[in-house]
Amino acid sequence: MASVTTPKGFTASAVAAGIKPSGNPDMALVVNNGPQWASAAVFTQNRVFAAPVKVTREAVAHGTLKAVVYNAGNANACTGAPGVNDAREMQQLVADAIEVHKQEVGVCSTGLIGEPLPMSNIRSGIASLTSNLGDYGEDAAEAIMTTDTVKKEASYQADGWTVAAMGKGVGMMAPSLATMLVLITTDAVVSSETLDRALKNATPSTFDAIDIDGSTSTNDTVIALASGASGIEPDATEFKEAIYSVCKDIAEQMQADAEGVTKRVTVRVTGTTSDVQARNAARTVARDNLFKCAMFGSDPNWGRVLAAVGMADADMDAENIAVSFNGHAVCKESTAVPGARDVDLSGVEIEVHIDLGTGGPGDAHVRTTDLSHDYVEINSAYSS
Amino acid sequence: MASVTTPKGFTASAVAAGIKPSGNPDMALVVNNGPQWASAAVFTQNRVFAAPVKVTREAVAHGTLKAVVYNAGNANACTGAPGVNDAREMQQLVADAIEVHKQEVGVCSTGLIGEPLPMSNIRSGIASLTSNLGDYGEDAAEAIMTTDTVKKEASYQADGWTVAAMGKGVGMMAPSLATMLVLITTDAVVSSETLDRALKNATPSTFDAIDIDGSTSTNDTVIALASGASGIEPDATEFKEAIYSVCKDIAEQMQADAEGVTKRVTVRVTGTTSDVQARNAARTVARDNLFKCAMFGSDPNWGRVLAAVGMADADMDAENIAVSFNGHAVCKESTAVPGARDVDLSGVEIEVHIDLGTGGPGDAHVRTTDLSHDYVEINSAYSS
Repeated sequence: MASVTTPKGFTASAVAAGIKPSGNPDMALVVNNGPQWASAAVFTQNRVFAAPVKVTREAVAHGTLKAVVYNAGNANACTGAPGVNDAREMQQLVADAIEVHKQEVGVCSTGLIGEPLPMSNIRSGIASLTSNLGDYGEDAAEAIMTTDTVKKEASYQADGWTVAAMGKGVGMMAPSLATMLVLITTDAVVSSETLDRALKNATPSTFDAIDIDGSTSTNDTVIALASGASGIEPDATEFKEAIYSVCKDIAEQMQADAEGVTKRVTVRVTGTTSDVQARNAARTVARDNLFKCAMFGSDPNWGRVLAAVGMADADMDAENIAVSFNGHAVCKESTAVPGARDVDLSGVEIEVHIDLGTGGPGDAHVRTTDLSHDYVEINSAYSS
Repeated sequence: MASVTTPKGFTASAVAAGIKPSGNPDMALVVNNGPQWASAAVFTQNRVFAAPVKVTREAVAHGTLKAVVYNAGNANACTGAPGVNDAREMQQLVADAIEVHKQEVGVCSTGLIGEPLPMSNIRSGIASLTSNLGDYGEDAAEAIMTTDTVKKEASYQADGWTVAAMGKGVGMMAPSLATMLVLITTDAVVSSETLDRALKNATPSTFDAIDIDGSTSTNDTVIALASGASGIEPDATEFKEAIYSVCKDIAEQMQADAEGVTKRVTVRVTGTTSDVQARNAARTVARDNLFKCAMFGSDPNWGRVLAAVGMADADMDAENIAVSFNGHAVCKESTAVPGARDVDLSGVEIEVHIDLGTGGPGDAHVRTTDLSHDYVEINSAYSS
């Protein structure tokens, strides 16, 4: 299986540094060995963001990332000035060991919020990571897992160049388990600007379109690194498609592995003025607990869809809304279609299509899950 | 116990019309017999609103309500033009029988969305209701229940005049079980304007400040009727206080009876620019599923509070947020207070106080509940 070290020019390492109580691997390092260096990143929108987000944002503003160091088991979030110092020390230790500038090192942490990083474990972990770099992308993908049940990797093989990605996250987002972290590597010859455009083209309809519990983490970070080691400058359209494809793949793996999920639900909205409004409306429905409970119960309860969407910030003709489940019309002109309650939703995949009836061109979807007993169980017992 | 027929000038009736599958009473009528008639009402903000809301809104716009007819078991929502005709027929049948204009009759329905009203049951129910009016306020309160486990009544006894209320609702709001319905009666001598001001003064911090699942029903209606039968014109301040008091009482009963509740949680936010911002922030936290699951687990997980509030539309100093649970400080300057994880939240009542650290005067609270296994169970099984 392809990993983040499949594209030429990248090495990685992983280690069990003793941060996770389980003793499983919990630190990783990915290094871009060039010959070229381009990078791009997107971060959480949350105003309460973790120390590593602050430090990595500064690094990205300063220039180009050449390496990213990860730890799982502790988010280094809500840890004040000492937390920022800890993140800076991680950055400096890696920079010194691999001989780059500290502003060329990104730092990502994931795990519990509000606990100080165990710095002695971190220091010995970084010593091990920097002295064991190699073709260990798969180990890196495993080390960044928290409550993920499977590691998440994706790749796109083009003619002579490759894009690969690893991610972790079991909900978009589970703040106390912070976080959604994604790293994309490519050996294509691209500028940071091209990489940034491709990344920002992909995220709105992939990572930003997953909404498991309406929560947004303090640590979410997506980083893309390009080494140019293939020597091939890709076709711009295909490159955008390649980045989109690995983002979509990782996003779908996150949805499938979301906490307590028994259903994978896609909410698509059309018939409103703009894509932004369509996404607002889809997100409003995707976050509605009564709708999510109905999905858990395999219940084609279109009344809950209408009640939820009626509160959305989107243009609609409230008397001309249509709803279908898995292609079966259950509601037209905001009233029941005969047989609506008999639609079979017992399968794992549910597609809900809501047309808001204005005839406008807005079209967007959001991926979510049901609200299950296991979701409640996992999220009420985690830190206690 | 006081009921909506305790204030002088009101009669009521209730009947089992066969709309609820249980065979329990499911229709009610409350009539203001004067000698004066004043009324006020507030309705759901949902753009998808039920036929009875449309019809009652029109009646209120036209003049003064003298009676309100209720049915439970069927919300008459998302029923199109036939549903509006059905609601108008309910209005007309009551008006003819008690000899008032149809625009003087309010109509409220609660129950399943998207099913046509069983009009033959409704017609015989109204015949019974209009011929059995008397001191049956308590029966009316029982007839409007859906998944409520107890009927909800409140009263305020002043010197010579009285305010009373009945309500139903087990979540603010549970759309498929639509709805929150409240009726307030008083024999005070007040104008519709005074009644309207008092009602609109009370609702923002009572009914609008309950947020069980972030959902807003298609049918929510609060109506106040004044008969003037006491002959006493109340002190304006005391009257406002009386209306506020019965609204607060009913709202607390709804919170306590919310679906699957094991915790009653009050989220208070201070230290932001305005009360509106404070309420936005409180509501954002109150709706966060990870926070609600933590409450179910009696887990003082302040990290989830910070992660949730960081996404709120409110001014904050993200490095100066303070959180306390039941008066115990757990987070200061956005970092942990020693011992924070040991705070005991095993009781039923939990008060969360979040100060957003700007020093601004904004102050508001929202009442919510935990997210429990029973919530998922009740809401995944209801209509199937």
